[in-house]
Amino acid sequence: MAKEKKVEQITDMDVDFGQWFTDVVIRSELIGYSGVKGFFILRPYGYAIWENIQAELDRRFKDTGHENISMPLLITESLLQKEKDHVEGFAPECAWVTFGGSEELEERLAIRPTSEVLFCDHWQQIVQSWRDLPKLYNQWASVLRWEKSTRPFLRHREFLWQEGHTVHATAEEAIAETEQMLEIYADVYENVLAMPCLKGVKTDKEKFAGAERTYCVECMMHDKKGLQAGTSHYFGDGFTKAFDITFTDKTNTLQHPHQTSWGFSTRSIGGIIMTHGDNNGLVLPPRIAPIQAIVIPIGMHKPGVLEKASELVSRLKTVGIRVKCDESDQTPGWKFAEYEMKGVPLRIEIGPKDIENGQCVAARRDNGEKVTIPLAALETKATELLDDIQISLFNKAKENLDKNTRNAATLDEAKAILNEHGGFIKTMWCGSRECELSMKAEADVTSRCLPFEQERIGDTCPICGKPGDKMVVWGVAY
Amino acid sequence: MAKEKKVEQITDMDVDFGQWFTDVVIRSELIGYSGVKGFFILRPYGYAIWENIQAELDRRFKDTGHENISMPLLITESLLQKEKDHVEGFAPECAWVTFGGSEELEERLAIRPTSEVLFCDHWQQIVQSWRDLPKLYNQWASVLRWEKSTRPFLRHREFLWQEGHTVHATAEEAIAETEQMLEIYADVYENVLAMPCLKGVKTDKEKFAGAERTYCVECMMHDKKGLQAGTSHYFGDGFTKAFDITFTDKTNTLQHPHQTSWGFSTRSIGGIIMTHGDNNGLVLPPRIAPIQAIVIPIGMHKPGVLEKASELVSRLKTVGIRVKCDESDQTPGWKFAEYEMKGVPLRIEIGPKDIENGQCVAARRDNGEKVTIPLAALETKATELLDDIQISLFNKAKENLDKNTRNAATLDEAKAILNEHGGFIKTMWCGSRECELSMKAEADVTSRCLPFEQERIGDTCPICGKPGDKMVVWGVAY
Repeated sequence: MAKEKKVEQITDMDVDFGQWFTDVVIRSELIGYSGVKGFFILRPYGYAIWENIQAELDRRFKDTGHENISMPLLITESLLQKEKDHVEGFAPECAWVTFGGSEELEERLAIRPTSEVLFCDHWQQIVQSWRDLPKLYNQWASVLRWEKSTRPFLRHREFLWQEGHTVHATAEEAIAETEQMLEIYADVYENVLAMPCLKGVKTDKEKFAGAERTYCVECMMHDKKGLQAGTSHYFGDGFTKAFDITFTDKTNTLQHPHQTSWGFSTRSIGGIIMTHGDNNGLVLPPRIAPIQAIVIPIGMHKPGVLEKASELVSRLKTVGIRVKCDESDQTPGWKFAEYEMKGVPLRIEIGPKDIENGQCVAARRDNGEKVTIPLAALETKATELLDDIQISLFNKAKENLDKNTRNAATLDEAKAILNEHGGFIKTMWCGSRECELSMKAEADVTSRCLPFEQERIGDTCPICGKPGDKMVVWGVAY
Repeated sequence: MAKEKKVEQITDMDVDFGQWFTDVVIRSELIGYSGVKGFFILRPYGYAIWENIQAELDRRFKDTGHENISMPLLITESLLQKEKDHVEGFAPECAWVTFGGSEELEERLAIRPTSEVLFCDHWQQIVQSWRDLPKLYNQWASVLRWEKSTRPFLRHREFLWQEGHTVHATAEEAIAETEQMLEIYADVYENVLAMPCLKGVKTDKEKFAGAERTYCVECMMHDKKGLQAGTSHYFGDGFTKAFDITFTDKTNTLQHPHQTSWGFSTRSIGGIIMTHGDNNGLVLPPRIAPIQAIVIPIGMHKPGVLEKASELVSRLKTVGIRVKCDESDQTPGWKFAEYEMKGVPLRIEIGPKDIENGQCVAARRDNGEKVTIPLAALETKATELLDDIQISLFNKAKENLDKNTRNAATLDEAKAILNEHGGFIKTMWCGSRECELSMKAEADVTSRCLPFEQERIGDTCPICGKPGDKMVVWGVAY
């Protein structure tokens, strides 16, 4: 009974994917609403996922020589205006502080929408010589963008992220950094979040305000829409010139250094939900699940059951599995539904009969399979199952991405495919912004990226018919 | 030469303690200035200290059942006004957002000065039954308070901290929580930051806006001034009534729960500097030092030196010591001064002669002592030295606290002691606010706390002469 009731509470994903998403986010207690539109509470279960993602990213950042730093929350309007493209991109969506206590400020202050200008202002003070380079910085912070329409995880007015900012002696070094960080993002998506991704470059139209080049990882959600999942920007020396950052190189010549930035946000959690979730709720990849295994005692009040359950917990903890036992007075059925909703990868049931037989029963969240495990093999089997769930989730998502990415040689073909199947299409492209805009107007898709792995699908741009030697992936995106 | 030059750059602490502090903060690259007064950049070396403190606190919070959460940055003015004492305390120092993009907001939004009202608003939505209690939450965040005068680490307009917020079924549980968290703060101060502290209760005058009772840890700096180093507040049901938070208890009766909050900030880093620092710069307790040992190769270009230095680094890493080798082309003298300035607890010198003799030389940052270590004993000896430095720093600070805390039976005695020695004085107190204000007016000190460890210094209040059964510690504080 309890189980059916719970499941009723979320909308069927095939009926209304958007409502299903919101239902899952609320029912699995990831997000709470606050009194200000677009400002969400990341509840403990949601925040714990973010902490696990943070740990994976932070370790990789430090292993590649980056240092964490904390920049101020507020930016003077004049500082924000120093780089022309950047201010055009961000000023319209800034939140502005105009009073400090009861005093009106002489110059209004923007809450950071991103922190490029703060880093540049700092580098201008501390970079003098080639000895000071590179500076490889990262900041874990929240930023504000005053979006019109908002949605949990996908579009917040305030969101948590990391923003890396680096400055280098040469363009080559800065480009290598930009690419390295994109590879780290792709590694975390594929090997930690079990989300396959396309790696590529954004078109000029889609690149970051002020960047020379924006690299991105793009994922496909269960509903075949795309998600821009992380970006890494190469700035050249545009900002460093605007901010008058110079260094003397080894030959004593004054130079402008080259700059990058790269960001990964809580949006990724939205991606996890929409990639792996199902009609019973959340499905979490084991590597970032706050609880990897939940032990449910059956016939809890029978002698020996709770003791045995807590023995299983201890044993699983010793092999590094994040495990809990639910000893609350709710029914097993209620608990099954609850931890399915919360996407816990593995459920372990233990009751009097299991104890008698020297076994427990493990149920996989990803496919519902139940396996009887001899207690003697608990640690090995649980570890194997978690590894297998991680891989199965990736494979399933990869199948979805591959199956729903199709080639199109003509505009009509592209439109027909999109009408019938949705998903991503690959076409050649001449490189002109006009054709990119036409594609949007005609087929209602935007360019996701020019993948690193280019293919040849004919040799003309299907929009204008002129020669096209670039392959673009197009799709509808969140 | 290089060394003398560096040391010249910081003011002698006995000449001008305040200037010495600022010099150390800047020269050791903990802090950078931004374009907005009171908003400081926590540079990588300063932030790494904070990360180490965070890890120590966060582990203790989680071990005692707390969960991390992320609350919004902004608070509507009406929400902030719900609790009368609280809004009086904080509204005058809020920064106010009045525009989102180009649109003027209907209601202005405060950047959180602290988040009690946000937690209460959330609990009002999610707490219904005794089953939902307690909620034990913590948030790592920055908060804003529009202070008139600002100073690195000690008084920022924006500062990093953790704020714990909990809600409980009973007053007893909430009080136990408040006391538990104070003990955790004291544990971290004494056993991690090597800073002895007084644990006690604030007077009504000094307690937090809206709290029933504020517990605190108070430390003494090298210049004998006090530092309020962490606070833990018991709110009773004042806020939960104001916010209409109720739960049905086990007997099905509707009740208001009881609440706590507690905070620990980057101010603690100011405390570390002013407790342990000296005229050569920072002195860091090993347990939070980002670099615990620095290896300096001597005669770096002689064959085998760099190889041996990097072997030492590997060996020290395997026993968990945070260690680096400086292979830059600066002179050894420059490097000695640099890592002294940065407070690295242990310097390890290795040159051709040392290698010949199968030894290295270790220099302690805390007392300058040099010890020759046989290479075979490197790991053991380095670990022992770091442990000993940790304990010695605590003992030295404890001696300073004990030596400069004196009893006074009369107001004249108190004034004479403070004039001659400064530091803390202990007196009895009748408990009236008038006497507390008189003490401030007459002796220019404020009440630091009523220590848990009460003593009897006569039985009258030295200010009014009436019976006084409470012992207060008074002092000048940052």
